[in-house]
Amino acid sequence: MLTSDLYLQVNRARLEDRITALAQIGAHGAELGAGITRRALSPEEDSAKEFIRACCTVEGIPTRQDGAGNLIARIGPHGPAVVTGSHLDTVPRGGHLDGAYGVIAGLEALCCLKEREAELTRAVELVAFTDEEGRFGAMVGSKCMSGDMDEQTLREARDESGRSLADAFKERGLSIEGALEARREPSEVERFIELHIEQGPVLETQGAEIGVVEEIVGIVRWRAVFRGEANHAGTTPMELRRDAFMGLTSFAQRLAELTKEHGSPAARVTIGEVNLSPGYMGVIPEEAHFTLDLRDIDQGRLEATNSALRALASAVATERQLSLEIEEVGHLHPTQCDPQVVSLIETLAQTAGHHTLRLPSGATHDAVPMSTLTPIGMIFVPSAQGVSHSPREYTSPEALSSGADLLLNVLYRYATQP
Amino acid sequence: MLTSDLYLQVNRARLEDRITALAQIGAHGAELGAGITRRALSPEEDSAKEFIRACCTVEGIPTRQDGAGNLIARIGPHGPAVVTGSHLDTVPRGGHLDGAYGVIAGLEALCCLKEREAELTRAVELVAFTDEEGRFGAMVGSKCMSGDMDEQTLREARDESGRSLADAFKERGLSIEGALEARREPSEVERFIELHIEQGPVLETQGAEIGVVEEIVGIVRWRAVFRGEANHAGTTPMELRRDAFMGLTSFAQRLAELTKEHGSPAARVTIGEVNLSPGYMGVIPEEAHFTLDLRDIDQGRLEATNSALRALASAVATERQLSLEIEEVGHLHPTQCDPQVVSLIETLAQTAGHHTLRLPSGATHDAVPMSTLTPIGMIFVPSAQGVSHSPREYTSPEALSSGADLLLNVLYRYATQP
Repeated sequence: MLTSDLYLQVNRARLEDRITALAQIGAHGAELGAGITRRALSPEEDSAKEFIRACCTVEGIPTRQDGAGNLIARIGPHGPAVVTGSHLDTVPRGGHLDGAYGVIAGLEALCCLKEREAELTRAVELVAFTDEEGRFGAMVGSKCMSGDMDEQTLREARDESGRSLADAFKERGLSIEGALEARREPSEVERFIELHIEQGPVLETQGAEIGVVEEIVGIVRWRAVFRGEANHAGTTPMELRRDAFMGLTSFAQRLAELTKEHGSPAARVTIGEVNLSPGYMGVIPEEAHFTLDLRDIDQGRLEATNSALRALASAVATERQLSLEIEEVGHLHPTQCDPQVVSLIETLAQTAGHHTLRLPSGATHDAVPMSTLTPIGMIFVPSAQGVSHSPREYTSPEALSSGADLLLNVLYRYATQP
Repeated sequence: MLTSDLYLQVNRARLEDRITALAQIGAHGAELGAGITRRALSPEEDSAKEFIRACCTVEGIPTRQDGAGNLIARIGPHGPAVVTGSHLDTVPRGGHLDGAYGVIAGLEALCCLKEREAELTRAVELVAFTDEEGRFGAMVGSKCMSGDMDEQTLREARDESGRSLADAFKERGLSIEGALEARREPSEVERFIELHIEQGPVLETQGAEIGVVEEIVGIVRWRAVFRGEANHAGTTPMELRRDAFMGLTSFAQRLAELTKEHGSPAARVTIGEVNLSPGYMGVIPEEAHFTLDLRDIDQGRLEATNSALRALASAVATERQLSLEIEEVGHLHPTQCDPQVVSLIETLAQTAGHHTLRLPSGATHDAVPMSTLTPIGMIFVPSAQGVSHSPREYTSPEALSSGADLLLNVLYRYATQP
């Protein structure tokens, strides 16, 4: 029998072994540094889910797959569940911790609670969500579960090669209709806790061992294009050019300054993709296609910065006689973590002797859709040099087990409440 | 019999018919506006050469192909030839006049001289040069003819899809060895005259009907890359980023100003290709690959601007903690047209009542390699709105026949000199 004032510990060797084992699936080479590619709904992600399912079977933990391909493991009584989870898919050539760590640590929590025969008043569930990274849209599985997904979006979803989500589902015995039926009721879920690597340098820089997430950034994303006139690079006088790329550079040069002016200190802005057309060495670019990714934890400031950037882009277009088209391809509001969950995570971590830091999450997570259903909380562990989405992701084994211990204890408290 | 004070005229209907007929080869649609793709050493360029060969056969003009695939038509006595020519290849979705006009007008000149039984003291040759536009390297045919080509360059030449020049040659019964044997001696060529559309707006803007080219720009071309660090767009603080694209925009923003400062008024600078890596919306760019195309008619100023741009790129890299790699993939010196040829072209054009303008050529041409062998001259006709390398290329029928008449008369003068 366990009592609620014990601070439980996971099986650290098993945690590390499973992280290492999972990192082999989709690996580009035997070394971690070669990177891992487990795109959503690929044979590699299938294998990763199969690995988690096999681990559960060994431990006698029942699993099921819902209509959106989310893998769900569950222990405890009927009725509402305290849920943890993250994702098994990666960006192309990603790292071994982003998503995977939260799933393996959640699995470890279920295993420990089962082994210790904890008397649970609530079920505890682990979910490995489908397509968090966005092959077909970002947080597809968690949005289906929370009801933040509509049929049209699912039907139109395609990856960058043009392959449809519907086809990827079909190959796995899934369907659009089934994915919509993955929706759960708020009454089925009592809190959602996600453990994740920070993906930023703040914890490391501040010397904190545990990050307690207070809010998750809102994100505005554009796909935009400046259009001018293609012409010969050798013959067209500089002052007569309508060079789309020069428009983009004028815009890009003022991005950071304007975001600082209108955003909160947590605001971030990035141009990650650029494609010029026609894109020849000797031709003035007619079109400069680009993406913009703007994030902030303050809803008002996010909107204000977005407006200021739109105005800047328009002004640049006018000044350089270009046309401008902005398509907003994403608009996520900032999400607050539940203050009581935040407080419990912080208290338990400090009980265990950890130096904690409250911080915002600059990345979005499956916790965001889940907040539609239930109060959420997130635990971060330090990312060495803040690196993520890269084979160079690294968190020390001590920090990985500290995070898993904390998750276990948070789940245990909620699952044993009267 | 013709006398040398006559101003000859081409068969305008035939000139126009042949321009129209040639424009069908490689056309993306029945309308000119759909664009034409006749890449060098493609089935489309083969057909275009076949068309010219067929026109010559009808007129009883002998043709041959040299080892570099240059198609050569010739009339007149043995011994040195006055040569005209241009190219039949196009950029992808290019226009119907760039290159093609000079070949058809040259063909027309040979036809007229033959029909009129002109008593030639020199042979007159028309050359349709292989690969002026650069599928495998730019001015490949004219460089082979002039001896400005080496074996290694030919052996290593590949197009953007990785196909080798050697393979493209082989398919056509040609070879690298044969291409090197296409080299001619200065004693075989007595002047080279090329007729071309301006590809810029100067003649139209100035109301001139004929452009007399005084010099052809030198070109420096880079393939370069700024390298920083890929990281998460949401979590990495703005001040800790090493964003390769931000480096490129800082550099690009000062390009025009610096080129104006160090270059002549004819200097031009263009970034035509940009590729970011990894190139995802949510990832800070680690690498920003780009091309730079710098042109000037003044050799000293071209070198000074090149040095200044290199220094600027280095300074930006240092400031933003990026690394920088510049590969110079082209370095062509400015080329002077022969003053006597310039003067003859100008005099004849004015005799015909044309308003002429001396100007530099901002584009390079097959005339540049040919200047290794012989004095050169170039005639330009106006390009509507300065547009070229585009389906929107347009020159009025009057201007096209004026240019062809002038070419005919220049060739006639040189070919009938005692």
